[in-house]
Amino acid sequence: MAALAEGEGEVGSLHLAAVMPDLPFLPFCAFLGSLGLGCVAFVSEWCQHWHGGFAWDGSARMFNWHPVLMVTGMVVLYGAAALVYRLPPTWRGPKLPWKMLHSTLALTAFVLAVLGLVAVFNFHNASGTPNMYSLHSWLGLGTILLFSCQWVAGFSAFLLPYAPIWLRTLYKPIHIFFGSTILMLSMASCVSGINEKLFFSLKNGTASVPYKLLPPEAVFANILGLLIILFGVLVLYALAKPSWKRPEADSLDTHQVLALDLAQDRLPQLRLLCRNSRSLCTMPCLFVGMLVRR
Amino acid sequence: MAALAEGEGEVGSLHLAAVMPDLPFLPFCAFLGSLGLGCVAFVSEWCQHWHGGFAWDGSARMFNWHPVLMVTGMVVLYGAAALVYRLPPTWRGPKLPWKMLHSTLALTAFVLAVLGLVAVFNFHNASGTPNMYSLHSWLGLGTILLFSCQWVAGFSAFLLPYAPIWLRTLYKPIHIFFGSTILMLSMASCVSGINEKLFFSLKNGTASVPYKLLPPEAVFANILGLLIILFGVLVLYALAKPSWKRPEADSLDTHQVLALDLAQDRLPQLRLLCRNSRSLCTMPCLFVGMLVRR
Repeated sequence: MAALAEGEGEVGSLHLAAVMPDLPFLPFCAFLGSLGLGCVAFVSEWCQHWHGGFAWDGSARMFNWHPVLMVTGMVVLYGAAALVYRLPPTWRGPKLPWKMLHSTLALTAFVLAVLGLVAVFNFHNASGTPNMYSLHSWLGLGTILLFSCQWVAGFSAFLLPYAPIWLRTLYKPIHIFFGSTILMLSMASCVSGINEKLFFSLKNGTASVPYKLLPPEAVFANILGLLIILFGVLVLYALAKPSWKRPEADSLDTHQVLALDLAQDRLPQLRLLCRNSRSLCTMPCLFVGMLVRR
Repeated sequence: MAALAEGEGEVGSLHLAAVMPDLPFLPFCAFLGSLGLGCVAFVSEWCQHWHGGFAWDGSARMFNWHPVLMVTGMVVLYGAAALVYRLPPTWRGPKLPWKMLHSTLALTAFVLAVLGLVAVFNFHNASGTPNMYSLHSWLGLGTILLFSCQWVAGFSAFLLPYAPIWLRTLYKPIHIFFGSTILMLSMASCVSGINEKLFFSLKNGTASVPYKLLPPEAVFANILGLLIILFGVLVLYALAKPSWKRPEADSLDTHQVLALDLAQDRLPQLRLLCRNSRSLCTMPCLFVGMLVRR
């Protein structure tokens, strides 16, 4: 997605900036928040109005938690977690509190997704339906497994104090790429799941108006699918837009990491790093290095 | 996706480059080509072996062209078109022949997608099934409409000689962003379509072994869905990877565009552009400008 960057670093980008004011992040973010809440409201209303609401008893009403928890966790909360570092207040001061927020939102999304899995497995087991046969289920479970690896690796590399700087630097672009990829896979899982559920619940011969005649439920849930796609694409757009990215040179994070590595007696590596790098961070790094040596 | 870039321009990237050799593009591209051919082979084999092969007569055998043409056009050929500018030979010499290749591949993908639509509409009309009711069909048609806008806008802005440079510069990042987005929407459409088709063809009560008992066809088509996802994610990865991007400063394209604009008597705009820009392209621009004035 952020292939966007390619076009913006070119000749003419400053000219362009003069021609067209940059889209402001906060109003965009407010719209995105409303859209996310809209997705949660739509999926809840679908299950409440057309499928009898919610229970936790192995019945079809337990299944209803599955779409609600998946959309809330794997799309809306996940999207919010991904956008934490795009909030301008995160650009100043230490990065650690924002890392904690990013990690907590992602963990909450993961817990909701696991509860969503429990809801569908319990419903299947109670009704004698096999688990994990459809492409939707393969893709959905694969996405959640990938997300669990992403969370554990992110926590180990960026929040625990043991990872060396070279490992963080190596892993960060991988973490960012898989962050967008997992959201994309979640969107594909949601679309295939909504499509599948509508074919089940509006079956020819049993539903009063089958799916192919587009009853109000079908229109409502199709629109839900498109809203999820719109939300996901806008999150990917916000992640990709270069001018909304946290300017790393202003971040205290690199200094924190470096101070940590110095404390672990890795000054030679730091020196090599500073010599090789043209980043604005190099001077503060050396300063921190001198302080630690004193 | 190319949020990857965020991590790679930071402190430590040179150090990292010394630690880990960069993944070579051409072997990756060969693997991607084989994977794309594998997707086409899988979808063709699915329709040939389990659904009676192909015809163009309004029957179910006409429907079979739909998945084959969509996977071949909207995923594999589309992915190939997107990756044209990642081929190192495109980095030298004039950009125009590569633009023609990119545009021709995309147009071929679009034509295949339209034929895929004709196949499914004819089958539906012949069998009395309504068109355009499922979420899969809404998303799929939306993706193809978006692709048609993308192609027309790309052709008008980058191949016809009328677009001014500021418009090309403004539109390029949008074209790149929607390029990745359309591929992502194609993947979601394919996954929901395969899932839907399997529920139709392996229906409880009519299929000898229903979908939920995972007959060989179900396993085969589920794997096809995962291969499509893998192919799409790898294309997005290749598009996002900064070191595989065409170094724009070496490109003759900007000079071509600028020479064109100068010929259209837009020297003041060029001067402003060059004054504002820190790109390596500015010196050749001025040189071209001087030549044109002489």
